[in-house]
Amino acid sequence: MGTPAVVLLSGGLDSTTVLAMAKSRGYEPYALSFRYGQRHAVELTSAKSVAEAQGVVRHVVADIDLRVFGGSALTADIEVPKHDRVAELSDDEIPTTYVPARNTIFLSFALAYAETVGAQDIFIGVNALDYSGYPDCRPEYIAAFQTMANLATKAGVGGPGMTIHTPLIEMTKAEIVRAGSALGVDYGLTSSCYDPSVDGQPCGRCDSCLLRLKGFEEAGLRDPLEYRAA
Amino acid sequence: MGTPAVVLLSGGLDSTTVLAMAKSRGYEPYALSFRYGQRHAVELTSAKSVAEAQGVVRHVVADIDLRVFGGSALTADIEVPKHDRVAELSDDEIPTTYVPARNTIFLSFALAYAETVGAQDIFIGVNALDYSGYPDCRPEYIAAFQTMANLATKAGVGGPGMTIHTPLIEMTKAEIVRAGSALGVDYGLTSSCYDPSVDGQPCGRCDSCLLRLKGFEEAGLRDPLEYRAA
Repeated sequence: MGTPAVVLLSGGLDSTTVLAMAKSRGYEPYALSFRYGQRHAVELTSAKSVAEAQGVVRHVVADIDLRVFGGSALTADIEVPKHDRVAELSDDEIPTTYVPARNTIFLSFALAYAETVGAQDIFIGVNALDYSGYPDCRPEYIAAFQTMANLATKAGVGGPGMTIHTPLIEMTKAEIVRAGSALGVDYGLTSSCYDPSVDGQPCGRCDSCLLRLKGFEEAGLRDPLEYRAA
Repeated sequence: MGTPAVVLLSGGLDSTTVLAMAKSRGYEPYALSFRYGQRHAVELTSAKSVAEAQGVVRHVVADIDLRVFGGSALTADIEVPKHDRVAELSDDEIPTTYVPARNTIFLSFALAYAETVGAQDIFIGVNALDYSGYPDCRPEYIAAFQTMANLATKAGVGGPGMTIHTPLIEMTKAEIVRAGSALGVDYGLTSSCYDPSVDGQPCGRCDSCLLRLKGFEEAGLRDPLEYRAA
């Protein structure tokens, strides 16, 4: 028996790579996904396939309706921005696809799951380099969450303590793709698009598709997905 | 127009008092409640009555199913502990009614709501004196959450910053009852019991009922609720 760990699994490229990394470090993974009113709910089908393919101990899909608050292009009726080239991605603005407090909500649920299964380790695929301006993907945010988590929980209060692992945080997308490929990840099961077609085909033009394609290109590897805009 | 503030409202004695305090300080309250698989879902009826009586700007009830994780007498099939006297309450143990990471999850949603309505203030009725051993009711936990929140959000990143208000944190239950009564709170609308009957009548013997009754007694005021065990 390995050590239990909760792994946040969206079904995208990053979280799927993180799951493979947690396994390769000897953890027994408990995967956690969310049905949060996202436009791109097809990613949950990907999460299920990935969880099965990698043999997690348990995969929980939590229902949380973030649409009650509104406020993001990923959940509300705001258009998902499209670009022709990755060069058009803006560096300094927080994009409209930002979901208010999303990672905080996701990590809070991971914390509840971790306490319940007796895990002291949580893995999340945040990335500070490719983070597209989301404030809750930065190392200082993760550190602050860990400090708070250790004051919030039984495990933290006189217990062994909780660790938030962010193995991708300093990696480029190309490095992530290379690392996952070396661990045998099947990226054909993953889903990254913010605005896929009803049958799940990625658009190839949203920020997320463009970053992914750029990553594969720079890694010198082929993305197994077929794109609408390709 | 006052300043917008998000107020976590369970429909219990503490959160109802906090709502009245937020209003008396000039905030325009946005109330937030949760349907989280609690045994005592009747508190949502109380929350609705309280929100209407106090005239909040908007009352959102978010659906989050914490039962997917199990692990607490408040959501799972573990018996709610009953006592004959408040003296039997234990001081140093975390009780079985603890819900893993509950306040962290609730505050995370409050943070999303606050960002969406442009609020920089969140009110929560945690209490360090009567907290019954919940780790996520202590001042150091709240301070850590606020630090994390200011790293997580648009408002915190170069913005005005987010404040978590805990006006009850150093108050006894008797002081809370007196303060709320002075502000005109109708405690007949509130609900505190962990194990009410199907028609909402409080048991009078769970930790929450006993603390409430003790508070009214020490304040020299009458609790308008009728108890099964009275």
